[in-house]
Amino acid sequence: MGLTAIYPGSFDPATNGHLDVITRASGLFDRLIVAVGRNSGKSSPLFTPEERVEMLREVSAPLPNVEVTTFDGMLVTFAREQGARVLIKGLRAVSDFEYEFQMALANRQLAPDIETLFLMTSAEHLYLSSSIVKEIARLSGDVSALVPPAVEARLKGALNR
Amino acid sequence: MGLTAIYPGSFDPATNGHLDVITRASGLFDRLIVAVGRNSGKSSPLFTPEERVEMLREVSAPLPNVEVTTFDGMLVTFAREQGARVLIKGLRAVSDFEYEFQMALANRQLAPDIETLFLMTSAEHLYLSSSIVKEIARLSGDVSALVPPAVEARLKGALNR
Amino acid sequence: MGLTAIYPGSFDPATNGHLDVITRASGLFDRLIVAVGRNSGKSSPLFTPEERVEMLREVSAPLPNVEVTTFDGMLVTFAREQGARVLIKGLRAVSDFEYEFQMALANRQLAPDIETLFLMTSAEHLYLSSSIVKEIARLSGDVSALVPPAVEARLKGALNR
Amino acid sequence: MGLTAIYPGSFDPATNGHLDVITRASGLFDRLIVAVGRNSGKSSPLFTPEERVEMLREVSAPLPNVEVTTFDGMLVTFAREQGARVLIKGLRAVSDFEYEFQMALANRQLAPDIETLFLMTSAEHLYLSSSIVKEIARLSGDVSALVPPAVEARLKGALNR
Amino acid sequence: MGLTAIYPGSFDPATNGHLDVITRASGLFDRLIVAVGRNSGKSSPLFTPEERVEMLREVSAPLPNVEVTTFDGMLVTFAREQGARVLIKGLRAVSDFEYEFQMALANRQLAPDIETLFLMTSAEHLYLSSSIVKEIARLSGDVSALVPPAVEARLKGALNR
Amino acid sequence: MGLTAIYPGSFDPATNGHLDVITRASGLFDRLIVAVGRNSGKSSPLFTPEERVEMLREVSAPLPNVEVTTFDGMLVTFAREQGARVLIKGLRAVSDFEYEFQMALANRQLAPDIETLFLMTSAEHLYLSSSIVKEIARLSGDVSALVPPAVEARLKGALNR
Repeated sequence: MGLTAIYPGSFDPATNGHLDVITRASGLFDRLIVAVGRNSGKSSPLFTPEERVEMLREVSAPLPNVEVTTFDGMLVTFAREQGARVLIKGLRAVSDFEYEFQMALANRQLAPDIETLFLMTSAEHLYLSSSIVKEIARLSGDVSALVPPAVEARLKGALNR
Repeated sequence: MGLTAIYPGSFDPATNGHLDVITRASGLFDRLIVAVGRNSGKSSPLFTPEERVEMLREVSAPLPNVEVTTFDGMLVTFAREQGARVLIKGLRAVSDFEYEFQMALANRQLAPDIETLFLMTSAEHLYLSSSIVKEIARLSGDVSALVPPAVEARLKGALNR
Repeated sequence: MGLTAIYPGSFDPATNGHLDVITRASGLFDRLIVAVGRNSGKSSPLFTPEERVEMLREVSAPLPNVEVTTFDGMLVTFAREQGARVLIKGLRAVSDFEYEFQMALANRQLAPDIETLFLMTSAEHLYLSSSIVKEIARLSGDVSALVPPAVEARLKGALNR
Repeated sequence: MGLTAIYPGSFDPATNGHLDVITRASGLFDRLIVAVGRNSGKSSPLFTPEERVEMLREVSAPLPNVEVTTFDGMLVTFAREQGARVLIKGLRAVSDFEYEFQMALANRQLAPDIETLFLMTSAEHLYLSSSIVKEIARLSGDVSALVPPAVEARLKGALNR
Repeated sequence: MGLTAIYPGSFDPATNGHLDVITRASGLFDRLIVAVGRNSGKSSPLFTPEERVEMLREVSAPLPNVEVTTFDGMLVTFAREQGARVLIKGLRAVSDFEYEFQMALANRQLAPDIETLFLMTSAEHLYLSSSIVKEIARLSGDVSALVPPAVEARLKGALNR
Repeated sequence: MGLTAIYPGSFDPATNGHLDVITRASGLFDRLIVAVGRNSGKSSPLFTPEERVEMLREVSAPLPNVEVTTFDGMLVTFAREQGARVLIKGLRAVSDFEYEFQMALANRQLAPDIETLFLMTSAEHLYLSSSIVKEIARLSGDVSALVPPAVEARLKGALNR
């Protein structure tokens, strides 16, 4: 059917868990747009949206049907502009589930034509989040098993800014 | 028995979900006090407590046994001053439940004579919260189905302050 | 307002947690009907509905506005016959909450005029359920702190039937 | 990409919630197989698998890319036989989520090439389950708003068997 | 301090998840008793308690401080007889947590001197349960990655009884 | 086996719930280190780490095998320096559980030789958290049943700074 899907997030920075979702979703849809939110509520991001896009492009380079971009404003508005009928979300835990459930219900109210689909994160990435990665990196812990090399390389620099 | 109940919250701003709880609770109790907390932990409210009271008074005007006011200090102290033996809480999700459960246990320890009663939010309001409303309004989305007209009219102005 | 409330359950048998809910609810409503379901899905009850009513009547004897009875058929139909506008449920845990949430939504669809109100179980009764009481009694454990004396006295006999 | 998806379940009987998932999933995938499990653990089903298939075929007749069939054995084996790379699940609540999460992890271990995707049930169907429908019907309640007419018509007969 | 710990369960049959908990707990305590409950509520076990003990002994043979036995009656009574002050439980999910939480509170009420300690199951065993193993084996699926060889060898025979 | 355990936290300030965990854990392990994190993410603590250590030392003075100290950097690094193989966590609720579950999985990935053990908080402390204590104290409520006297005595002073 030529479906376009959007995988939105703040990706500050992308983890191996995000990469796992991107890889699996890119195998299911004709076109996958990884969309970095410019105005997520999160207060003080570590990376600029442009840096996050750059890292995501590096790690998804082997996947030809994946595009990476930023977006402003309402996610469902952006989805319509892109001709996307599917939003992809990764789930790790009950608290994710509840928040995403509320967002999915809100988005359906705003845009009944756009569907939210949830993928389970792989078991080995269940504990992974951008916040935990940043916390470990801040304490000089080893994050090489948690993020792609392109992210690891930039983490130290970003933390020293 | 002439029961007085208190429905406390930050109501920044009131949503159709809050209005649904107010309407249903006002049908059960002789007197319902909607109590806007002045010192809720939330950092930077969009509306002043006075504005929130004003909007709540407008939307609850058709309900003669509903009063709207602000309160300072401990909720259970305020409840006693008002002769209220019941606190009303609306529940939407498991995370609400857990937090409210802890607050209810704490309040019972502080004031065993005051009971917390929980009402389920209607299914169509499950996704609704003041934060989601503000986020959608900030992104210029349409909130007319989410908040009473009295709130919608003031949202744009408040966001432009 | 002269409210009548119904506290439904299987009460097989009543625990100190149920008694706590009965006591607190009887202080809030003009009339409280403790309603023992005859056709709850539970497969092999330990006590007959009549025995459960008898025990509940004993333990709630000091509370003049409490009635105990059995009911057949739909709970909301029974509530209407009794002129009750409130259903009372006790909550202990997230799994309770989810099931009761679904039942409350279903009941509201069937009878929008009847409201479900949830009371929190006291902290000291959080671990209590009729099943745990029966399991401990079956293993000859001491249940004197878990159930009213009227129930404890009958448990041994019922288990030996 | 010509994706085939499978929506497995016991559908004893199908509810409006199931129909909602079928309708939405059929809009996303080229071919949707609604698969009635013959050996689900559930003890005493109300309808035979053949009856359930018949009802599902009636209700999904307007959707040309939907097929309905039964299956035996492992779901992932059946999926491979059908050339399906996607399993669809509907989610209503945290307890659904946890069970489905474990099943999705187990299925991924058994068949890494098959992806489980979760759709949120619509808010108005959150309280709906086949069990609740059967319980209400058994108590002679009105289920016309809960199931498609094709199911309602057969419920009374099945309960009188 | 010479602590003895008990790891109770039905182990019908033991999975790699159970073995993981046994291995880790045996490294923390001086003596670990794996205790197979004879009267767990579960209706129709696949293996006899004796068979389960035999399999557990085989898989824990390399761990010299692990004993395997059955027990009757109350777990806390058995713990006292064994001089054990610690009960070990493995946790996988929120629903486990709630049930175990209630059991832990009940056991503390019955035996304040005995402490329940919870270990997290490893991420790769999060989806594993005895029930899922039996379901997969029943459908002729491959369980070699889910259970120790000693269990796998007996599963086919037990299912054909 | 001479086990050393670490009970980490921010303890801002210690509550009766923390003291309960300390008391019970000190009875199980040879040496218990209560470790006050210097760089927990929490933004504006009420007490300095040194004040928190001082209060914890006062309340744990009767327990000879308990040490109180601060730590910097990664918890697992600190644990190794101390020769500790066990991390102790207290659990109150599902949301605690999920966060601690993710931290435990992350810590196991970083240090497979260190085990996280969870103790259940006593039922009477289920509602207790440092935040709730501070909120009540800030509103001039009575916290004498919620914190040890050594903490209560310092709360007023700290809030007036």
